Amino acid sequence: MKIGYFQFNPVFGAKYTNIKKVSQKLQDKMLNCDLMVLPEFFNTGYNFISKKEVQNLSEKIPEGETTQALMSIAKNKNMFIVAGLPEKEKNYCFNSACIVGPDGFIAKYQKIHLFFREKLFFTTGKIKLNPIDIKKTKVGVLICFDWIFPEAMRTLALKGAQIIAHPTNLVLSFYQSASITRAIENRLFIVLANRWGYENRGKNSFSFTGKSQIVSPFGEILACSPSAKDEIKIVNIDPSKANDKNINKYNNLFKDRKPKFYV
Amino acid sequence: MKIGYFQFNPVFGAKYTNIKKVSQKLQDKMLNCDLMVLPEFFNTGYNFISKKEVQNLSEKIPEGETTQALMSIAKNKNMFIVAGLPEKEKNYCFNSACIVGPDGFIAKYQKIHLFFREKLFFTTGKIKLNPIDIKKTKVGVLICFDWIFPEAMRTLALKGAQIIAHPTNLVLSFYQSASITRAIENRLFIVLANRWGYENRGKNSFSFTGKSQIVSPFGEILACSPSAKDEIKIVNIDPSKANDKNINKYNNLFKDRKPKFYV
Repeated sequence: MKIGYFQFNPVFGAKYTNIKKVSQKLQDKMLNCDLMVLPEFFNTGYNFISKKEVQNLSEKIPEGETTQALMSIAKNKNMFIVAGLPEKEKNYCFNSACIVGPDGFIAKYQKIHLFFREKLFFTTGKIKLNPIDIKKTKVGVLICFDWIFPEAMRTLALKGAQIIAHPTNLVLSFYQSASITRAIENRLFIVLANRWGYENRGKNSFSFTGKSQIVSPFGEILACSPSAKDEIKIVNIDPSKANDKNINKYNNLFKDRKPKFYV
Repeated sequence: MKIGYFQFNPVFGAKYTNIKKVSQKLQDKMLNCDLMVLPEFFNTGYNFISKKEVQNLSEKIPEGETTQALMSIAKNKNMFIVAGLPEKEKNYCFNSACIVGPDGFIAKYQKIHLFFREKLFFTTGKIKLNPIDIKKTKVGVLICFDWIFPEAMRTLALKGAQIIAHPTNLVLSFYQSASITRAIENRLFIVLANRWGYENRGKNSFSFTGKSQIVSPFGEILACSPSAKDEIKIVNIDPSKANDKNINKYNNLFKDRKPKFYV
């Protein structure tokens, strides 16, 4: 199974430009990928300064133009895509990710751990943490700051996730290292799809750290990118490597858990 | 508050030698420390080959000679010590740590996640994960392989632990990096007291990885040691730095948890 990410530098508010760029890059004839992960808010950029702006740039999933465009790419390339975008659902906005495939829309996830000023603009997600079936592979989706709560990925792992598709807009670089811990403690693959670039809007400026990477269940970095460069990376993996939680003859990462001791 | 570790290379089975070494080093007139952490099985070495051997080298806590020797050092130096040792309790043996202070024995912890062949020789701990009060500071104790289960340190952190005293005999080097993740996700200090050296006994040989370290709640490495060297490191910290779980104006590491989504 070929899994990958596209790290780039979305232009704030320029949905058409961002979607077009993704559409062109992912539909390159040479590109061959089964599961492609795009950054958080890949279509709009990150640094919203008002609720109104968020409302204007958010879309319904899957009816909105962004999810529709991704569905078209997924169909043309016979691949699955996980991508972050601001979602409008009735009067609420969510920091969401859609999961689409060759046969259309599959599922969505709404970030449950909102970061910083996202709390002013977005509602906490309401969808349970459940891995999504992509062919025979179970893919869990988390968004950016979800990483710092070990319970989030743990929940997906205990429910069978073999791959974590993780769109991010990281302003710090902790998760690039911490994702190795997360992969090891849960014995699964992680596709950390980060963005790069700088957004200075209103009173806040953010510099995004790039360095997207793909980590194996054993903590190996299978692919990684620099801190400021457009880059697609794709690696060939065997998702079943995430099924065996045995560390050695005596230890199993999941069976050795002692829930009665845990809060 | 001065916290530290003594990384060394215990000689297997040579309790007297190991205790004497610790006693001499920790009672050096120049040494000034409030909380000292020693490696897992500091008094006996690690590579047991039979249950009988474990029975012979294990001791009651606090009645045994090892805990008594540590109590004496703690009293003489007016400090607290956390140290790993094999414990005998009735007919059961545990991979334990004792916590002693200037006024004597305080508490013990028995490893709940046994590693590899420890399962042949030791019983899973029965003591709940609770931080220990050392003066006004709350110290949580974990032993080696406990690290890979994020729930263990999380439990101690949620119960108020400001410092994790972590005796280890690490044969791999994952935790030296992962401890940074653990410190960040729980916003607390970690004293990773590892051993170095090589033990070849029976059919199994182990090489221990040293590189003990002290990590701040912000993931900074405050002190660290090489992979193969006796070394005492002590740093001056403010334990209250672990109390504030706010990451920024909007985010709090604990209040932002969403337990209803977690398994």
